[in-house]
Formats: sequence, C-alpha cells, structure tokens
Amino acid sequence: MKNPYKDLKDVSDVVISTRIRFARNLKEYPFPCRLSEDKKRKVASIIKEAVLEGHSAISDRFKYIQMSELTQEEAVSLVERHLVSPEFISGRQGRGLLLLNDESVSIMINEEDHVRIQVINRGMKLNETYELADKIDTLLDERLDFAFDEKLGYLTQCPTNIGTGMRASLMLHLPALQESGAMGKIAASLSKLGIVIRGLYGENTDPSGAIYQLSNQVTLGITEQEAIKNLHDIAMQLVAQERNTREQLSENINMLDSIYRSYGILSYAKLISNSECMKLLSNVRFGVEMGCFEIDFDTLDRLFIEIQPATLMKNIGKKLTPAERDRIRSELVRTALNTKQIPASRRLENT
Amino acid sequence: MKNPYKDLKDVSDVVISTRIRFARNLKEYPFPCRLSEDKKRKVASIIKEAVLEGHSAISDRFKYIQMSELTQEEAVSLVERHLVSPEFISGRQGRGLLLLNDESVSIMINEEDHVRIQVINRGMKLNETYELADKIDTLLDERLDFAFDEKLGYLTQCPTNIGTGMRASLMLHLPALQESGAMGKIAASLSKLGIVIRGLYGENTDPSGAIYQLSNQVTLGITEQEAIKNLHDIAMQLVAQERNTREQLSENINMLDSIYRSYGILSYAKLISNSECMKLLSNVRFGVEMGCFEIDFDTLDRLFIEIQPATLMKNIGKKLTPAERDRIRSELVRTALNTKQIPASRRLENT
Repeated sequence: MKNPYKDLKDVSDVVISTRIRFARNLKEYPFPCRLSEDKKRKVASIIKEAVLEGHSAISDRFKYIQMSELTQEEAVSLVERHLVSPEFISGRQGRGLLLLNDESVSIMINEEDHVRIQVINRGMKLNETYELADKIDTLLDERLDFAFDEKLGYLTQCPTNIGTGMRASLMLHLPALQESGAMGKIAASLSKLGIVIRGLYGENTDPSGAIYQLSNQVTLGITEQEAIKNLHDIAMQLVAQERNTREQLSENINMLDSIYRSYGILSYAKLISNSECMKLLSNVRFGVEMGCFEIDFDTLDRLFIEIQPATLMKNIGKKLTPAERDRIRSELVRTALNTKQIPASRRLENT
Repeated sequence: MKNPYKDLKDVSDVVISTRIRFARNLKEYPFPCRLSEDKKRKVASIIKEAVLEGHSAISDRFKYIQMSELTQEEAVSLVERHLVSPEFISGRQGRGLLLLNDESVSIMINEEDHVRIQVINRGMKLNETYELADKIDTLLDERLDFAFDEKLGYLTQCPTNIGTGMRASLMLHLPALQESGAMGKIAASLSKLGIVIRGLYGENTDPSGAIYQLSNQVTLGITEQEAIKNLHDIAMQLVAQERNTREQLSENINMLDSIYRSYGILSYAKLISNSECMKLLSNVRFGVEMGCFEIDFDTLDRLFIEIQPATLMKNIGKKLTPAERDRIRSELVRTALNTKQIPASRRLENT
C-alpha cells in the first residue's frame, strides 16, 4: 500500500469531512415546535436580517432560501449535500436557510431550534471548522439575544443539546472495519465514551458506502474544546484501527477482486442504481486507500453526493425517471473516472 | 452496428468453427465395445501404421498419442480443445489419438468406432473442411479395409451413423436468440429437418457462453454433399435470425449494460470462475458482434478454450487448485484483452 500507516497528519484516506453544528434559540420566542407559522416567519426574518445585514465581509456571501419555495428535488438535494437535516425538509413552512456561496456554511432557521449553524470542511479540520462556526455564532450573538442559562449554558429544545449546543462530527470511510464485521462492537464501546457512530445521512440511516458519521454526544458539563479533543482522539484511534485492518486485508485476493471488479463495472456500466453506485464507489475509494488506483479522493467524495437522485436531477436541470437517472448516473461516473465509453481497438497479435 | 446484415460471405460474427467427422470401422474386427484390450491395441497399431507410414506429405505431420499414457489434465484438455469426445477419455485403455501438428485434424482410434476422423476449421468452411476429411479418409481407405455395405454404406456401431458415417457440425454463437428465449422452439423445429442443435461440448452439455453445435442427424439415404448443403442452408437461416434479433436488441439499454459490464469485469477482476468467464466472454463477443468494441473474434474464441480448467493447467504446466485457476484465468483474460492491471493516474481537474 502507498499510504504510510503512521501518517497522522494526512488522514484523508479515512476522514472525508468535518462538521461543526451549533444549536441556538432566541430568548424571547418559544421553540419552533410551539410557534405558529406567523411567528416562525417572524423569527426567520429576525435571523435572516441579523446575518445578511451583519455588515461583516461574510454577510455579503450568504444567500437566503425560503424553504417553502423550493421544489421537492431542490429540497432533497440540500439533504443529499449534507447542508440541511432530513427533518428540516419534512415540513418547510416558516423555515429558512442561509447558505454561504461556497456551501461551507449553512444556517437552518426553525429546524428543531431557531438557529442551527453548520460549518463543513473536507478532511480532518476540527479546529479550523470550529473557529469558523464560532465566528458566525459571535456574529449572530452580537445582534440576537440567545437563550442562555448561567448554569446550564445554551438552552435547546432537545435536552441532549443543552450546554454547548455543539455537535462536532467527522465523516469517516471505514470499509475495512465494516468488511471485518467490527462496526457493531465499535459502536457499542464508543457510546460509553460519549461518542456516537451512525450512517451517512444521520440517525436511522444505513452506513451505505461504508461511510459513517462520528459525533460527540455530551454537550453538558464539558467545554467545546474538550468535546472536540475527545472526538479527535477517538477518531485517530479509529483511523489506526481502520488502517491496521486494511493492512490485514491487503493480501486478501477476494477483497482485491471485489475492488477491481467495482472499478471495472463503474468504468463500463450503462445503468447503475444509487445503492449499487454507493457500494461500488466505496470499493473504489477503498482501492485508492489500498494503493490499487490513483484517483483523488476529491473526485470520489464529490461523486458520492453527485450520484444522489435529487442532486443528479438538480444538476441536469429536469425531472428524470429512475431508469433515466440510472443511465445518467453511469455516464457521470464514467466521465469522472475518465473512462472512454468505447475502448479503442484492442487487437492482439499472439500468433 | 458495424456488421452489414446482408453479408453472407463473412459470417464469423455467428459461425465460430466448422467440423467434419467420419466414422469408419475395420471389416475384419468387431466394434471396439466387443474387443478385448489386446485386440484394441492391435487395431490401434494397424490404424496408426496406416496413417504414419502413409508416405504422403500429411503423414509426417501426425503424431500418435497413446491415451493411457496421458495425465487426467492432458486428456481433459483434449476434450476442452474439441479434439476428442468426452466419451473417448472415460476409458482410455487401448485407445489412441493421431493428431495433426496444427491440431486441425484428429483421428480417434477405438472410440465408439475403430476410426473417427475429425477435421476442424475456424469460421464457416464446410466444403474446405469436408475436402480435407475426405482426403484423409481416402488415405486410410487405400491401406485399410473398411466395413462397407453396398446398400447401407459405411457400417458403424451406432445405427444413427450408418451410411455416410459423416457428421458435419457448425459451432455457432447465438447470444441474441438465447437471450430472446427462442432456442427451445428453434431446436424443436430443426429436429424435423434432420438437424440437431446442442451445447458446446456435445450431447447433454449446457450451451454455456451461448455457443451451440449445429449438426446433421441423417446419414442414411443421403449423400455427404446433400447433408452438407442442408446444414449450410439451415445455418444461414440461423445466421439471419440471430442477426435480426441482434438488431432488435441493439437499442436495449439493459442488454448493452450487461455487455459493457462484462467487459469491465473481465478487464479488472482478479478471480474468475470458468462458468462466469464463459458467460462474460460470450457477452463481450456479443458486444463485438453489436459493434460495441473492436476485438478480433480469434482472440475471444481462443479464450473460450484457454480458460477451461485442464487446458489452463496444461498451458501453465502444473496442477492448480480451483482458487489458483480462478486467479490465473483472470490474468489470462486481462492480458488477452490487453488491459493494464493498474490503471494509470486518472486525476480529474473539474474545479
């Protein structure tokens, strides 16, 4: 394998992205679930104004999206791109979204809490991501009166968020640990350390493509820095564990066969479903991690999102039947993997 | 599709090979099933001598193989290469094989009959193949006294061969007809015309890889030329039917998907079983027939044989476990399809 297994600086073979989320609520309003639609709109307009008229450099780079004005595909694509939670698009009246132009920051208004600030970065960037989230929190704090209790900290609708109101998450690619069947045991022992590990799109979703979300659970009686350090340390243990398991699997011919076949299928298929594509892309990423191919992680990680049904349709700009999506998905992947559709003449002179 | 469907001269997209076989018996000996081993050896030596000491140019190019001296792999490989029948290697005592150096002619001694002359050629070459078989028959006839009845013709152990003692066969690739589910009906109607269609390795074998053997059934009351013309005409009808069905399937995205996936898997797999390989190679040949790829039929048709277990081991020169065979089979196919094992850097600059 190409990757030096002792490299603890570049962990992009395991860590896909970092996310920090703050939950905040306005002191003078009940939680969104207790608000009328009118009041929700009022809250939304207060928060929107606080951000867009913040007169800071970053304010100008936000756009405001009224969730009720989106088509279903546009809304679902926001979930697929990890910009909003699945819950956020289930009832869209009175909800708004502030989105930074590069999509690294999204602020959900009237999700479970009045404000959910979310910052995403590629790779393992806990401190950098935290700093930007904190900066935006400060920006809002200057103009809004957040519900805060001296003893408890930030008040949130769900008690599990009270305190820092912060959730730090890392998206991890763990194909070797998944293959070895170790994930159940790992999840159980992590929960004792105040860390939860779950599927790609959050609670109750499948770890499709061997992509997992690792997040802190404890928000009370702990500082943000402590929570982040705890998450970081546990993530680095998982990185080591995943890499060791990869090393053990590196000579496994069945594993390699499945990796190379996945590459072959993605390179030539004319139809491919979303779930098969996730599985095959995961195997190809695994192949890159094992040194079988040279494809940059960026290309692959972008594909994991671009192949999702709603994002596919959003990018194409029209509604598609599932069969049409399967066809276009296969084209998208072939193009990204840079494979010619019709291989050149491969005559063989073995006489 | 590339192939002009009216091209009746080059039918190599459907017809893989032509085979002519003559059954002959020595007048003064009972059929092999009634011979002791000693007598079988006597018969073998008479026939061997007649061929090898024939003082014709072709005599020098034959080698004699005593079947009892072969390893099981060598014997099975002869079947895989279509040089002998599966029955011929089941009991090998007293049996001999005369093989032309380019393997286009094989003479089985003491199969069901004393002599089975077989000539194989690539493509549709009924006349040419018949002429060579006839020439060898004449060569033998000059030195041996064949059992012949003025009324019945050549006498053979099985009544279905009495008369001309000739079986003419064409090996056909019929993926579209197989896919369309038409083969059962075709087989039924052909049997009424004195023609039988069956799997790759003869009676009671599966049509693996969509490869079928089309042969004349009638040997009595019909000349060789009539039998060959009948077979030719029916084969040409099948060629037209197969080509029409291909045209109908040419826009079928599921069919194309399966063809391209097969190519992708063969190009990258690290392990591949015999039966999967047959199926995938058949799909790839289908792809070439449909104009999807450019690979010469020779390469593919040779692979159909070289991937067979015993031939694989014979060519490698040692016994292999099934898992080792699966690995080496995948290498063999990758090399033949000229695919690099590790694709070159495929970084994508889509910023």
